[in-house]
Amino acid sequence: MSLLVVGSVAYDGIETPHGKVDRILGGAATYIALSSSFFTKPSIVAVIGDDFADEDRQLLVDRGIDLQGLEQVPGKCFFWQGVYSADMNSRSTLRTDLNVFADFSPKVPDSYRDTPFLMLGNIQPTLQDNVRTQLTAPRTVGGDTMDFWINDFRDQLLATIANWDFLLINDSEAKALSGETNLLRAAEKIHAMGPKWVIIKRGEFGAVLFEQGQGHFVAPGYILDQVFDPTGAGDCFAGGFFGYLAENQEKLGAGPIPSQILRQAVIYGSVMGSFCCERFGPERFQTLTRDEIDARFREFAEFTRFI
Amino acid sequence: MSLLVVGSVAYDGIETPHGKVDRILGGAATYIALSSSFFTKPSIVAVIGDDFADEDRQLLVDRGIDLQGLEQVPGKCFFWQGVYSADMNSRSTLRTDLNVFADFSPKVPDSYRDTPFLMLGNIQPTLQDNVRTQLTAPRTVGGDTMDFWINDFRDQLLATIANWDFLLINDSEAKALSGETNLLRAAEKIHAMGPKWVIIKRGEFGAVLFEQGQGHFVAPGYILDQVFDPTGAGDCFAGGFFGYLAENQEKLGAGPIPSQILRQAVIYGSVMGSFCCERFGPERFQTLTRDEIDARFREFAEFTRFI
Repeated sequence: MSLLVVGSVAYDGIETPHGKVDRILGGAATYIALSSSFFTKPSIVAVIGDDFADEDRQLLVDRGIDLQGLEQVPGKCFFWQGVYSADMNSRSTLRTDLNVFADFSPKVPDSYRDTPFLMLGNIQPTLQDNVRTQLTAPRTVGGDTMDFWINDFRDQLLATIANWDFLLINDSEAKALSGETNLLRAAEKIHAMGPKWVIIKRGEFGAVLFEQGQGHFVAPGYILDQVFDPTGAGDCFAGGFFGYLAENQEKLGAGPIPSQILRQAVIYGSVMGSFCCERFGPERFQTLTRDEIDARFREFAEFTRFI
Repeated sequence: MSLLVVGSVAYDGIETPHGKVDRILGGAATYIALSSSFFTKPSIVAVIGDDFADEDRQLLVDRGIDLQGLEQVPGKCFFWQGVYSADMNSRSTLRTDLNVFADFSPKVPDSYRDTPFLMLGNIQPTLQDNVRTQLTAPRTVGGDTMDFWINDFRDQLLATIANWDFLLINDSEAKALSGETNLLRAAEKIHAMGPKWVIIKRGEFGAVLFEQGQGHFVAPGYILDQVFDPTGAGDCFAGGFFGYLAENQEKLGAGPIPSQILRQAVIYGSVMGSFCCERFGPERFQTLTRDEIDARFREFAEFTRFI
């Protein structure tokens, strides 16, 4: 295993202008793992209830995801229900049932302890830190967070991200965390909190990678013919990004990751986020191929070229 | 003269989080002409009142802008006053005094009639058409418009843009004009209205160029250290875009404009829009140099490179 993914494995109820599903596989760890599985062999640390469907487990197994760290306990899986606005740029949460996730205490199996790449999905910051310290000496650690932890668990969050290489957050979260509305100054402040690399996700407008002291890279969003369901797109970005780094592990060695590889990882992240939006939930990953992924990477090169 | 610019020459009262000015030179034609003057020799067709300041006329003259078509009549200049939100992504109009602009009837001087490039700033669509038909045989015609004309003067607008090569509008206007929320389908519908090229401006997120039947080009926005005042940025985009085309007039000949030149023109448009935001009103253009412009163009190449 080269990439360990931590986060929720859940069920979602989703309504978009294109349709509605009452219950579909979801959760940050699910999306990150599925997305990264096209580049590397990820493993998961997460908790599920006894209502987790065999077919959903099979989908993860079929994608080569290691599930030794997927703990099953009595009770129900985490459940989230939401509805998107007409332009899908915002969404309202209708229901959040933590269920078995309320008592989640991540246990990293022994066989995972020397995993080099660690991607911490959006969960309670202290739990994220708990997972990191269970690993022997991770080469590269990245994580996501959200407004709730930024506002109400600020001290724990700052103590946690102090040990991260990468922070991946969206633009409003970057502003909330840094107290700066300007992206350049927000990134500078976040660098000072620990992460040498900050990736600010901007939804349909792409993402910006800030490398401490080395400038930034701006990736535009892929313009889809139809955005069917944006749920999980940010996590799929993280999966593509870390999956590509893990795929290039040998080439990287132990030294700093070259800017060119990081930039390509951002594009692969964007590619995976765009595919995610093409179907409800994680459905697109049932048919997606690496050839399609690489073709879209080349499309990014084509539609951004001007020299 | 290689570029004729039509639109308002006006005064603005502007308040942003960084300060306030009660009266500063503004107007679409002003910004388009100033911006394009770093690439070509533009001329203006517009109307001003007897309160137009000598120093503002001198600024335009110093930038090499031909003012034969700048008609001065009794009365006051168009005046607009607005205030920006804290993040500067939206603004409220506090006051609009049309003044001499209410009776604007554009007269194209004889010496302008064979101008090859025509950029029609945002004014009443029938007036835009009136200017176009006064030219002998313009090589390339582009124009801007706004929600007011899209919603309340739709028939006139459609009759006008049917004869344009380029339409430059922002994303909400593109959606209003086409009735499509998806950018790809919005561009397709607008192509069917006449313009073979559609440029959709996305504010801080850059711009997208759609070439009918030939795909698209996505330019990210330049991330400024500080956005001082976004007034005129869209018009400066148009000025940089058309200025660069006019600068390359000889290379272009009479044939279709190569995609690579169009893409570079979009980047130069973005460069000029970004400089515009660095000071209040058009102040930045008093000190800007072509070297700074070309350096920022190279910065665009650097922060978008990933291959």
